[in-house]
Amino acid sequence: MTKYVYVFGADSTEGSAEMVDLLGGKGANLADMARLGIPVPPGFTITTEVCRHFYAAGRRYPEDLQGQVVEALEKVGRATGRTFGSPENPLLVSIRSGARRSMPGMMETVLNVGLTEQTLAGLVSQTQNERFAYDAYRRLLMMYSDVVMEKGAGIEPQGKGIRKLLDERLDRVKHRRGYAADTELTADELKGLVVEFKDLIRKTLGQAFPEDPWEQLWGAIGAVFASWMGKRAVEYRRIERIPDTWGTAVNVQAMVFGNMGEDCATGVAFTRNPATGENAFYGEYLVNAQGEDVVAGIRTPAPLNVHSRNDQSRHLPTLEERMPAAYRELCAIRDKLELRYRDMQDIEFTIERGKLYMLQCRTGKRTGVAAARMAIEMLDEGLIDQRTAVLRVAPVQLVELLLPMLDPASEAKAEPIARGLPAGPGGAVGRAVFTAQDAVEWSARGEKVILVREETSPEDVDGMHKAQAVLTSKGGMTSHAALVARGWGKCCIVGCGEIEITRTGKSFRTQRGNTVKEGDWISLNGTTGRVYRGALPLVPAAPEGNPYYVRLMELADHFRTLKVRTNADTPKDAAQAIRFGAEGIGLFRTEHMFYGEGSEEPLFLLRKMIMSTTAEERRKALEELFPYVKADVKATLDVMDGRPVTIRLLDPPLHEFVPHDREKLARLAEELGVKMGALRKRAEALRENNPMLGHRGVRLGITYPEITEMQLRAILEATAELLASGKRVQPEVMIPITGTAAELAHQMAIFEQVRAEIRTRLGLSELPCLFGTMIEIPRAALRAGDIAATAEFFSFGTNDLTQMTFGFSRDDVGSFLPDYLRGGILPADPFQTLDQEGVGELIAIGIARGRAARADLKVGICGEHGGDPESVMFCHRVGMDYVSCSPFRVPIARLAAAHAALREE
Amino acid sequence: MTKYVYVFGADSTEGSAEMVDLLGGKGANLADMARLGIPVPPGFTITTEVCRHFYAAGRRYPEDLQGQVVEALEKVGRATGRTFGSPENPLLVSIRSGARRSMPGMMETVLNVGLTEQTLAGLVSQTQNERFAYDAYRRLLMMYSDVVMEKGAGIEPQGKGIRKLLDERLDRVKHRRGYAADTELTADELKGLVVEFKDLIRKTLGQAFPEDPWEQLWGAIGAVFASWMGKRAVEYRRIERIPDTWGTAVNVQAMVFGNMGEDCATGVAFTRNPATGENAFYGEYLVNAQGEDVVAGIRTPAPLNVHSRNDQSRHLPTLEERMPAAYRELCAIRDKLELRYRDMQDIEFTIERGKLYMLQCRTGKRTGVAAARMAIEMLDEGLIDQRTAVLRVAPVQLVELLLPMLDPASEAKAEPIARGLPAGPGGAVGRAVFTAQDAVEWSARGEKVILVREETSPEDVDGMHKAQAVLTSKGGMTSHAALVARGWGKCCIVGCGEIEITRTGKSFRTQRGNTVKEGDWISLNGTTGRVYRGALPLVPAAPEGNPYYVRLMELADHFRTLKVRTNADTPKDAAQAIRFGAEGIGLFRTEHMFYGEGSEEPLFLLRKMIMSTTAEERRKALEELFPYVKADVKATLDVMDGRPVTIRLLDPPLHEFVPHDREKLARLAEELGVKMGALRKRAEALRENNPMLGHRGVRLGITYPEITEMQLRAILEATAELLASGKRVQPEVMIPITGTAAELAHQMAIFEQVRAEIRTRLGLSELPCLFGTMIEIPRAALRAGDIAATAEFFSFGTNDLTQMTFGFSRDDVGSFLPDYLRGGILPADPFQTLDQEGVGELIAIGIARGRAARADLKVGICGEHGGDPESVMFCHRVGMDYVSCSPFRVPIARLAAAHAALREE
Repeated sequence: MTKYVYVFGADSTEGSAEMVDLLGGKGANLADMARLGIPVPPGFTITTEVCRHFYAAGRRYPEDLQGQVVEALEKVGRATGRTFGSPENPLLVSIRSGARRSMPGMMETVLNVGLTEQTLAGLVSQTQNERFAYDAYRRLLMMYSDVVMEKGAGIEPQGKGIRKLLDERLDRVKHRRGYAADTELTADELKGLVVEFKDLIRKTLGQAFPEDPWEQLWGAIGAVFASWMGKRAVEYRRIERIPDTWGTAVNVQAMVFGNMGEDCATGVAFTRNPATGENAFYGEYLVNAQGEDVVAGIRTPAPLNVHSRNDQSRHLPTLEERMPAAYRELCAIRDKLELRYRDMQDIEFTIERGKLYMLQCRTGKRTGVAAARMAIEMLDEGLIDQRTAVLRVAPVQLVELLLPMLDPASEAKAEPIARGLPAGPGGAVGRAVFTAQDAVEWSARGEKVILVREETSPEDVDGMHKAQAVLTSKGGMTSHAALVARGWGKCCIVGCGEIEITRTGKSFRTQRGNTVKEGDWISLNGTTGRVYRGALPLVPAAPEGNPYYVRLMELADHFRTLKVRTNADTPKDAAQAIRFGAEGIGLFRTEHMFYGEGSEEPLFLLRKMIMSTTAEERRKALEELFPYVKADVKATLDVMDGRPVTIRLLDPPLHEFVPHDREKLARLAEELGVKMGALRKRAEALRENNPMLGHRGVRLGITYPEITEMQLRAILEATAELLASGKRVQPEVMIPITGTAAELAHQMAIFEQVRAEIRTRLGLSELPCLFGTMIEIPRAALRAGDIAATAEFFSFGTNDLTQMTFGFSRDDVGSFLPDYLRGGILPADPFQTLDQEGVGELIAIGIARGRAARADLKVGICGEHGGDPESVMFCHRVGMDYVSCSPFRVPIARLAAAHAALREE
Repeated sequence: MTKYVYVFGADSTEGSAEMVDLLGGKGANLADMARLGIPVPPGFTITTEVCRHFYAAGRRYPEDLQGQVVEALEKVGRATGRTFGSPENPLLVSIRSGARRSMPGMMETVLNVGLTEQTLAGLVSQTQNERFAYDAYRRLLMMYSDVVMEKGAGIEPQGKGIRKLLDERLDRVKHRRGYAADTELTADELKGLVVEFKDLIRKTLGQAFPEDPWEQLWGAIGAVFASWMGKRAVEYRRIERIPDTWGTAVNVQAMVFGNMGEDCATGVAFTRNPATGENAFYGEYLVNAQGEDVVAGIRTPAPLNVHSRNDQSRHLPTLEERMPAAYRELCAIRDKLELRYRDMQDIEFTIERGKLYMLQCRTGKRTGVAAARMAIEMLDEGLIDQRTAVLRVAPVQLVELLLPMLDPASEAKAEPIARGLPAGPGGAVGRAVFTAQDAVEWSARGEKVILVREETSPEDVDGMHKAQAVLTSKGGMTSHAALVARGWGKCCIVGCGEIEITRTGKSFRTQRGNTVKEGDWISLNGTTGRVYRGALPLVPAAPEGNPYYVRLMELADHFRTLKVRTNADTPKDAAQAIRFGAEGIGLFRTEHMFYGEGSEEPLFLLRKMIMSTTAEERRKALEELFPYVKADVKATLDVMDGRPVTIRLLDPPLHEFVPHDREKLARLAEELGVKMGALRKRAEALRENNPMLGHRGVRLGITYPEITEMQLRAILEATAELLASGKRVQPEVMIPITGTAAELAHQMAIFEQVRAEIRTRLGLSELPCLFGTMIEIPRAALRAGDIAATAEFFSFGTNDLTQMTFGFSRDDVGSFLPDYLRGGILPADPFQTLDQEGVGELIAIGIARGRAARADLKVGICGEHGGDPESVMFCHRVGMDYVSCSPFRVPIARLAAAHAALREE
């Protein structure tokens, strides 16, 4: 006979902590606590196997189940000295779900099961409290009719649901009596409500509330199992990638009551402070209350102890003061649990007439700051080893430590006026401006501004740089605004469709009816995508001042094998990245010098080059441009002090550099000495229908070999000069958009020619510089074997590779991606988290074929994914040598790389 | 000792026809003719193995070669009764290349080798013709200095090359004397020239012309081997995919002279008429001339016989009349050669003092018309079998039979004013117009017009349809203009960068300085991309009237296993395709109904649907649109009479349907009852940066499921109604742009729901319709296993798959593709000929994974490649069930499929 039911806390405990798959997290932990001698109300767990059977057999239970449940309930009765269904001394039970992994709020709970007109009398005599008993009964009526009779039966309410109807009755009585809280209702009033409720339930749902305790029990169990396939639960699992086949367990447990009087209480606590990580017991409680009252937030919970006081609760008595014995017992349990689980626990407890019961214990959620501190302190306390300490902090949690953020307390009190996509994390506060020009001007006179645009373009970059943050109404997580902001570690919200920039272009309106004008203060939380009116206070970040962070990162570096580089285009970014632990530059974009803060001359010269109509003119413009490119490359090579620097040759289509507005175009025409019409014509000729798939990268280098030649000369001369002055330098030239081996061979020939020429001219015996390519075109991944014959390294450009593998334009994906994520058609935005099935296979093919052709091929990644933890782990698994990401994500990548290495062991 | 030299035509012949790899085509055929007893001047072939050795050993010959050459030359001397280098009776030889496959004009030739100041006297006494001897000497000086001393030595001329300098001297003397032809030069004048030439050679090239016959011989052999790696030859091989390792052979052959007097002649002939295929000896000759004179075109060659007369040569005596004995011998040789090679031969001959010599014989090139006729006639004559007959006609040669073309004779006399990309073959003549509107209006009043545009868009389609042909200055071979024109079998030239449309928009200028104004007559040859001024005559096509074509296609259908469908959007196209042998429709584009010739109502309703802002409004517009879509689908299903019809759901991004011009937009606003501003805003919101990668295909179907639903309802109702009326019908619903299995499952759910609903409503026991998908996103090919769980068929959309695999936008590729083709970076336009290495691997992966998941998965292709012969053969090899192409390419695909099947055997 298969065992479907596991008793805990009665005369014996049958389950254990290891049986999570069968008993669910809650059930396994309840059993475990009972084994540890921790006071747990007795009960039993119906296994996840029953859930699987339930669905496989068309919502039927296995035959043996009923007998096992009856038997278990008898054991529970014996342990409590009560009997389920007894009119004299009834046992009441709670029915709760409990899956292998916590799915908070996604499934159903029913309390006080077993209470009927008959057993009610028994409860009154048990408790000597008629009001309490009727209150318990009306709570059962409300929960049961909602969870079991309506939702559990799959009834689609016509108009309002039953819960709402009953709530309205309750409110009406309270209103009539002038009561503020439910607790003010008298026993008689509750009796009247019970009658009303039963009547309403019968009329609304077409059947009577079941007065048979066993019918109640099976009804509630069935409703919990049914909720496993509820819409919310299914969607949650799809997002969290939890298989439907896991199923949920059902926990049936003797009721204990925190609401029987002033010697009763209920509370939640954390074994350490989940916000700061401080090793101090932290929690809150309510006297004379049920668990749901703590959550509901009608009464302000009191602090557990002095460590738990906050602004709201400062004046309230602590549990330590009010119930010292129960508090001491709770403290002892806290120590026991931490020693047992070697991690911070999140617990729920109830005190019934002075006696403490534990209702739940699970590993607690915590902030990034707290996670780092707990990991290091537990390591020092000998609770965990180094590996565990590193694995305790999720890489993405480091974001909080790296960026200034809105003060959480202030934010909790504020109401967002709009929500968008969280493109650049951290917080920012500033006055709204609507053009890049204004951003520059306002900030020049010392104003903090937030740039609000429909979308941004390279011409806005200066204004974006000057702004505290960027807010756009269009674009996705990898739109221009998002990419630029994330590279800088700047707060940014994009695709905020809830705002609409007005006709004047100097204000925006939100869907909720707010209007924000130029100069109005707004605050952004780039981590959540929330926009607030007014200036909320900011909390700064200083990770190097956080000793826990510093030690954690040392450990991470000790364990990881994947190197971490950064994407940086300026000496300033490079220096910042080194501070964050970057071991080289994986992507230096030559084109970014044209939009920097420096002189406008390079951009002008570039435009001159672009507008040339003959190779002759172009060559002349390139010669003028040359010293700027060389100086730019040289400065960054110098700062990197011998670390590898991958320099990508010109990538964007030329049209991107053509000025958009009439005025700039006119000035260019004047300065170039050509007619406006001719200039406009040339600009028009450069325009493309699909610039992403257009004339860019190596394609430019092939049609205009002189552009490649100038850049290579700049890089190699800068290298030669630094070497001559005794500096260490390790340049790597990278060709973008390669799709065929012949393209790369064409560029390689120019490279070798320029290198030979410089060596001869300067009399150098060698001029070391690697020559490699981006792999960002699907074809390049497939033909990696041919390509590696020429390339000494590959760098996977996963932004473009994702675009082309999916056929998605990252600039346009915003029009349908939200529908895809909502509908579960894609598990995640593939521009944020690498699509391992599709894009990942191309990467794996590319690496395998590349290394087969050249065993020592160096392989890295330089797309946005280089800073995404899940993607970093993938990069480790497929055998890359390094990842490269924006400076602010370097620590995240370092930690993710350590996780990958440790998980592999 | 390795044998490096094979003698032919002397006392013995060592080579044979089978030794093509070792002796090259020319050498093997000369040996073969000698064995057949055909008079061939004696000579020998130095093998391709020597060429390989030459390059492997740093331009050195194998040790044994010299002895073998000396020995062979002695044999040749004995056969001719002359001695190489003898001052009394010298043997002169020609040195010619000869690769495994003919590379016409790519390598070098030197004639009269062995002629020196010393042997000159011997030649004079042999021929009793001093003028002839000095003429031969000056010819040797000119050829040798150019081919051996300059090019062969790798000298880069400073200024003009030596050949040009010598030509100028020759011209100067002729000019001074007032001579028109070289033949007018006297012996004395030639003597003087020889002195001048030698002097100039020494001064220009820094060394004297070699007076040692052996030095001449080895110099010439070396120059021919060197020309194998010459730039032209290397490029030609890259394009023709001939490996460098094949090498060339060198043929050394006793000179015979067609220019010794009136009893001498030289000529070229074809064993059948290469233009018409007629079984009649066809050729031309010149009395008293060398081979190069026939090619040079200074004298008009005379016809071989009456069959060979043309307008220019009608008045000239035939060879048959003038040298009847030689002609009879030639005819006998013709019969021998056809029997031997069982194919039409292209031969060169020389008559020296009445004696006939054959210098070359090879399989001759022919037009498509001729190829079909020869294949069928040779089959009937018993010369070849059925398989050979089918393989004799290259699929692409059928183009000529299918489309009207410019009269070749008239075209030969005209000078093109510009050249572009040959996007739609055939010829067209019309008056230039510059807007679609004008094309419609002019043609309405009976004018034949050619529409000239920078690019075309869907709004131009009506005008394109009315025009005889389309000429665009931008865009590539798969631009909108090219695709539309090819689909219709309409003549079209695109990407004609040599023309520029003037400001007025009512004329264009060419780079060569011509201006063509509105209304001027122009003629296009869409097969070559040439544009002519004026109206050239057209030659019509009527393949079904050509009995050879008809029988050839019957044979092809007998052998092929791959099915051939068509891409057709209208009943008219479908009917045309059936006439061309289509077995079904592989691509019916629902969106094309919006640009047809019929009512404008559907487009208006579509626009209304697009401009809706709520699902409600959209649903209403869709309901109005529904009857039109249903009628459209039904008409084509009906015409196809039970053949399969693959109907693709809406594919293009919605923005493509939004009217561009103000006026149309205003009318739409008025008719929709919305404000112009709102309409403009909505249009703007639909605009995308990279529409090719944007919100289209299945992505539309997911965000607007009601669009999918309406189309499916139309298709399934049309099917049900046709079935009810006793018609046969075989619809297949195809989802475009699928990238993930979840997308397809989402659409499949709608499909099943709509089908069930219709079946229930109409009480049908079944409603057969396949459900499948395009595979055109790289990710879809990789995830084909998942996708085939839902899809019943795959149709590879190789246009988009090529775009995404390469990262090329077909609309923009014109800016760099010409450079890629010129530089050999790509062997062919991948939008025309499938990239088998890259895109092809994805297709192979897709088929393998798809069939592994669903063994009976139906697989086809519906990109432009479906009509490209090489790509069709690939489709056969990877195991597709069918290809689909535009109606006019159906016969080509049928023949290509037969070739693929026969080659496989």
